[in-house]
Amino acid sequence: MKIGMIGLGRMGGNMVKRLVLGGHEVVAYDRNPEPVKELQEENDVQGASSIPELVNFLEPRRVVWMMVPAGDPTEQTLETLLSLLSPGDIIIDGGNSNFRDSMRRAKLCRAQQIEFIDAGTSGGIWGLANGYCLMVGGENDAVHYCEPVFKTLAPENGYLHTGPVGSGHFVKMVHNGIEYGLLQAYGEGFEILKESQFPLDLPAIAALWNHGSVVRSWLLELLEQAYAQNPDLKNIRGYIEDSGEGRWTVEEAINENVPAPVITASLFARFASRQEESYGAKVIAALRNAFGGHPVKTE
Amino acid sequence: MKIGMIGLGRMGGNMVKRLVLGGHEVVAYDRNPEPVKELQEENDVQGASSIPELVNFLEPRRVVWMMVPAGDPTEQTLETLLSLLSPGDIIIDGGNSNFRDSMRRAKLCRAQQIEFIDAGTSGGIWGLANGYCLMVGGENDAVHYCEPVFKTLAPENGYLHTGPVGSGHFVKMVHNGIEYGLLQAYGEGFEILKESQFPLDLPAIAALWNHGSVVRSWLLELLEQAYAQNPDLKNIRGYIEDSGEGRWTVEEAINENVPAPVITASLFARFASRQEESYGAKVIAALRNAFGGHPVKTE
Amino acid sequence: MKIGMIGLGRMGGNMVKRLVLGGHEVVAYDRNPEPVKELQEENDVQGASSIPELVNFLEPRRVVWMMVPAGDPTEQTLETLLSLLSPGDIIIDGGNSNFRDSMRRAKLCRAQQIEFIDAGTSGGIWGLANGYCLMVGGENDAVHYCEPVFKTLAPENGYLHTGPVGSGHFVKMVHNGIEYGLLQAYGEGFEILKESQFPLDLPAIAALWNHGSVVRSWLLELLEQAYAQNPDLKNIRGYIEDSGEGRWTVEEAINENVPAPVITASLFARFASRQEESYGAKVIAALRNAFGGHPVKTE
Amino acid sequence: MKIGMIGLGRMGGNMVKRLVLGGHEVVAYDRNPEPVKELQEENDVQGASSIPELVNFLEPRRVVWMMVPAGDPTEQTLETLLSLLSPGDIIIDGGNSNFRDSMRRAKLCRAQQIEFIDAGTSGGIWGLANGYCLMVGGENDAVHYCEPVFKTLAPENGYLHTGPVGSGHFVKMVHNGIEYGLLQAYGEGFEILKESQFPLDLPAIAALWNHGSVVRSWLLELLEQAYAQNPDLKNIRGYIEDSGEGRWTVEEAINENVPAPVITASLFARFASRQEESYGAKVIAALRNAFGGHPVKTE
Repeated sequence: MKIGMIGLGRMGGNMVKRLVLGGHEVVAYDRNPEPVKELQEENDVQGASSIPELVNFLEPRRVVWMMVPAGDPTEQTLETLLSLLSPGDIIIDGGNSNFRDSMRRAKLCRAQQIEFIDAGTSGGIWGLANGYCLMVGGENDAVHYCEPVFKTLAPENGYLHTGPVGSGHFVKMVHNGIEYGLLQAYGEGFEILKESQFPLDLPAIAALWNHGSVVRSWLLELLEQAYAQNPDLKNIRGYIEDSGEGRWTVEEAINENVPAPVITASLFARFASRQEESYGAKVIAALRNAFGGHPVKTE
Repeated sequence: MKIGMIGLGRMGGNMVKRLVLGGHEVVAYDRNPEPVKELQEENDVQGASSIPELVNFLEPRRVVWMMVPAGDPTEQTLETLLSLLSPGDIIIDGGNSNFRDSMRRAKLCRAQQIEFIDAGTSGGIWGLANGYCLMVGGENDAVHYCEPVFKTLAPENGYLHTGPVGSGHFVKMVHNGIEYGLLQAYGEGFEILKESQFPLDLPAIAALWNHGSVVRSWLLELLEQAYAQNPDLKNIRGYIEDSGEGRWTVEEAINENVPAPVITASLFARFASRQEESYGAKVIAALRNAFGGHPVKTE
Repeated sequence: MKIGMIGLGRMGGNMVKRLVLGGHEVVAYDRNPEPVKELQEENDVQGASSIPELVNFLEPRRVVWMMVPAGDPTEQTLETLLSLLSPGDIIIDGGNSNFRDSMRRAKLCRAQQIEFIDAGTSGGIWGLANGYCLMVGGENDAVHYCEPVFKTLAPENGYLHTGPVGSGHFVKMVHNGIEYGLLQAYGEGFEILKESQFPLDLPAIAALWNHGSVVRSWLLELLEQAYAQNPDLKNIRGYIEDSGEGRWTVEEAINENVPAPVITASLFARFASRQEESYGAKVIAALRNAFGGHPVKTE
Repeated sequence: MKIGMIGLGRMGGNMVKRLVLGGHEVVAYDRNPEPVKELQEENDVQGASSIPELVNFLEPRRVVWMMVPAGDPTEQTLETLLSLLSPGDIIIDGGNSNFRDSMRRAKLCRAQQIEFIDAGTSGGIWGLANGYCLMVGGENDAVHYCEPVFKTLAPENGYLHTGPVGSGHFVKMVHNGIEYGLLQAYGEGFEILKESQFPLDLPAIAALWNHGSVVRSWLLELLEQAYAQNPDLKNIRGYIEDSGEGRWTVEEAINENVPAPVITASLFARFASRQEESYGAKVIAALRNAFGGHPVKTE
C-alpha cells in the first residue's frame, strides 16, 4: 500500500527501506533534507519537501506514519497533519510517546473523524534486517486497514493488535521498563565479575552464556558482540541516558499500586550515573561527621 | 572416557544420558536405587550400589562427578570420596556449591594429591536436549583431562575454563544472580501489564516480544510456552523459593563494594513472596496509628 | 484574629481547639454536624451549618482554612468558596494536597483577586498539645496577614514561610516522603531483631534507644509507647495504607532526576503489604518451574 | 569500681572521662602514648604503658574494657589479655565487632574461665555529655558485676542487658543498620528539596522540622546544627564511608529471610558515592549503543 513517513532518523529511515523492500510505496519527509534525498536516490522513495507536500502525494484514505521524537515534535507534527488530512485518514504514531498523550491525541483526531493508531516499535537499529516488533493500539477497522504495513515492518509473528488506542504505547512502555531491568541485571552481574578476586575474562563469559545458559538473550548476544569489538569497553563512559519510558513505567506501577523495585532501581541507577556527586550523600557525610566525628572528604 | 556420576536427580540423571549419547562410559550412583536401575536398564549405564562400588568400577586416573545438593550432601560425598580415591584422581563438583566452599574443598583434596574441579552447570531440565552451559574452575591439567566430558555435556562453545578453582562456581553464582534480576524484571513488567486499564492479552504479548523486540530471551520463550499451557497461571502460587546463589551474589557484591540494587531487590521480592505478613509492616502500621490516628487493620 | 475552619476531622477539630486556646475567634463547619455541635458547646466556637453561613459569619478580609481530604473534597470546597468570597479574602489549604494542584488552584483564586495559601501541616493527633509544624507557601502579604494564626497553631519556631504558592505543600510532601523512609528503616530493623537467633525484648530495645542512641527520634518515642501498650502488636495487621504524598515524592524525584531508592522502597513495601499475592511472583514461579523443574506451590 | 580501658580514641577517651566523673578508678592504655599522658595529667587517670602493665595495675576480679577498632586490633588485644588475665576476670568489648566474632571470642574466654561481655555502644562524640546508649550481651553474673560502669556511661534508662553473649553487638548492629536508613531518608529528602523548582532554604527547613513535625529526631537536630555552621555544605564531598555494621545487617537480614530494601539501598548508596564510575553503567551504555544506536559518552 501507499504510506507517508515523517521522520527519517535512526528508526524511520530504516523503516522506509524495509517498507520499500516489502513492496510498499512510501512518501518520505524529514525536517532535514539529507535523508530525504538519500532515500529518494538510493531506495526509489518519493521525497516530500514539506508535510503538506507529503499529504498531497497521498490519496485518501491516507495513512501517515509519524516517527519523530516524543513530546513537542510529535505534538506539532500531529497538529499539522490534523490541519491537512480528511475524515477517514489514519495517523500512526510509531514513536515512544506516553500512552496518555496518545489517548488524548486520539480524541483530537476522532473529533475530525481521523483515526489514530499508536504503534509501539521495538528493534532499534537491527529492525531493518530483523524486523520491528510492533505493539499496536487502535480501532479494529483502522488497524486492519494498515495491517499490510505492520506485517512488512514486523518479523513473522512480530506484530500484535494489543487493544484500544493507548494500549500499544502502554505495552511498549512496559517493554522498555523490562528492558531497563534486564540491562541493569546484566550490568550488575558483570560489575561483580569484574571486581572479583578471580582474573575473569568477561568477553569470554558473555559469549559462553549465550550457549545453553539460563540467562541467554538477544541483549546478551549484543553484549558478546560489543565485547568482541571492545573487550575493555574503552572510551565508553558509564553514563546512561533515558528517554522517558522507564520513568513512565514507574509512574504507572505507582498508579496501579504495583511494587516495581527492579525497574525503579534501574531507573535510579541511570540517574546516579549522570550525577557528578549526590547532594544527599553530602548531607549524610555532614551528619556522620556531626554525630560520630567521622572525617569528611573535602573537595 | 569413563566417569562416575554421583547424584541422579533432575540434573544428574539427564547428564548421564547426554554423556552416554556422547559415547562416554558412565558409572552411576544415587542414594535412591530407582534412578540407578532405570539408567542401567534403559541407557546401558553401569549402576553402582554404593560410592565405594562406584569408585571400584573406575580405574585410575578416576574422574568422579558429584551432582548432589550443595551443603551437607556435597560435603559428605566429598569426604567419602577422599577416603576412597588415589592421588591423581579428579573430583568434579557440578552442583550449586558456594565458591568459598569449593576453594576450601580443593585444599582438602590437594592435601591428598587429588584434583578438585568446580563446574558451574546451567541449563536446567533443558540441558539434555540443548546441552549444559559449563563454567569450569580448576588446574589446567585436570581441566584439560576432563575436557571430553565437558565438551559432550555442553553445546558448542558452551564450555569455558574460567580460571582457578572457585572461579567456576563464582561465575555460576553471578549467572544465577543475573537470572534473579531478569526474572524479576519480567515479573514486574507482566504485573504492570496485568493491572493496567487495558484488557491486555498477556500470553499474546509474551509471544509477541519473542519476535524482534529488545527483551527477547530464552526465559521469555519459556514464559511464552508456560502461558500457552496455562494462560491464567492457574494453580501457581506467587511463592518463590531460592537456592542460595542469589544470597551469595548479594554478599559478594557487598564484599566487593559493588552496588547491586536489582539483584538484591529480586532476592527480597522472593523473601516477601514467602511471608504471610511482614512484622516490619506491623511496626509501621502501629506507628502510623500512633502519630496520625490512622486506623489499623485488625487480624 | 477571626478565621473560618472547614473540616473538623482528626486534624481540623484539634486545630480549632488550639486556635481558640490561643485567643482566636473561630467559625467552624463540617459536613457532619456532630463535631460542629461539640466544638460549639465545649469550646465556645461559632458553628456554621453550611459554607455560605460560615462565609457570612466572617467579615472581609476573610480568612478560611480548608482542612478536608485532598482531591475532590478540597476541589469542591474551593469552588464553593470561590463563589462566595470577595477580592482580598484568603483561602488556606492545610490538607495534604498535591503542590501542583495548589499552584493551579492559586491561579483560579488569583483570577478573582482572592489569595491562596498552601499550608503543609504536620503533627498528627499530637498537634493539639505540641503544636503543628507548618510549611507555608504563598504571597508575602497574605502570609504575613495570617501569621497570628500560624504562630498559634505552631510550636515556637515551628512555622516557616517556605516561598511562593506550592512550596508549602511541596515541602510537606517531601517531609512525608522522608517519614516513609524513617518508618521503613525502623520497620526493617525491628523485623531483623524479631527474627534473630536471640530472644530479644523489642519493647525494651525501643525504649532503650530513646536514651542516648543515634537513632532516637519522636517516631521512636511513639514506638516505645505503642510497645508499652501492646508489646506483641496484637491485633495490628501488617497492612499499610498510603495517602499520596509518598507517591508524589517519588514522582517529583523522577522529575528532578534524583535517585530516591529508600523513599521508593518504602512506598513499594506499603504496596506489597496490601497484596494478597504478587502476580509477578506467580510469573517467576511459573518460569522457575519451566526452566529448572522447580516445584510450584499450588493454591 | 576499678576498670581498665584499652583504646583512647574518639570514643574511648571520652568514656574514660565520663567514668572518672562518675567516681570510678580507671587505668588507661593506648598504643599511642599521647592520649594516655593527657588523661593522666588532666583527668587523674592511672596511665599504663602496656597492656601487661594495665593488667598489673588491676586486681582480680579484673574488668578490662576494649575500645579498639573491630577486626584485627580487637582480636589481638583479646589474645594479649587472655594470656594475662585470671579466671573470673571480665573482658568487655565496647567496639563495633561483628556479633559472630563476639560469640566466638566468648568461647575462647570461657575456655579460660574468663567472662566476655559485648557492649554495643552508641552516642558518638556526644556521649561524654549525653551518655552512651549501651546494649550489653553476656552472662547475668558478669553483667551484674559491671553494672556500676554501665550505669555511669549510659544516661538514665540508656543501658540494657539484651541477652546472652553476642546479643549486645547484634542489637548495636541493627541499630546502625537503622541509622543508615534514617540518614539516607533525610539525604534523599533534602536532595529532592534542593533540586526542586522552588528556591528553598534548606537550613531553615531542617530547623523548622525539629519543631512539631513527624520527622523530628536527634539526627535532624544535628543536621540543623550542621547547616547552621555551613549552609551550603561547602567543602564536604558526597563521599560516605561505612564501617561494617550496615553490611552485616544486610547479611543477617538475608540469613533471616527478611526483606530489608531500605537498609540495603542505604548501603548501596554509600558504595555508589565512592565510585568514580560504575562498570555496570559502562556495560549498559555499551548495550544501549549496540541495540539502539544511542550515543555513548566517551572519556
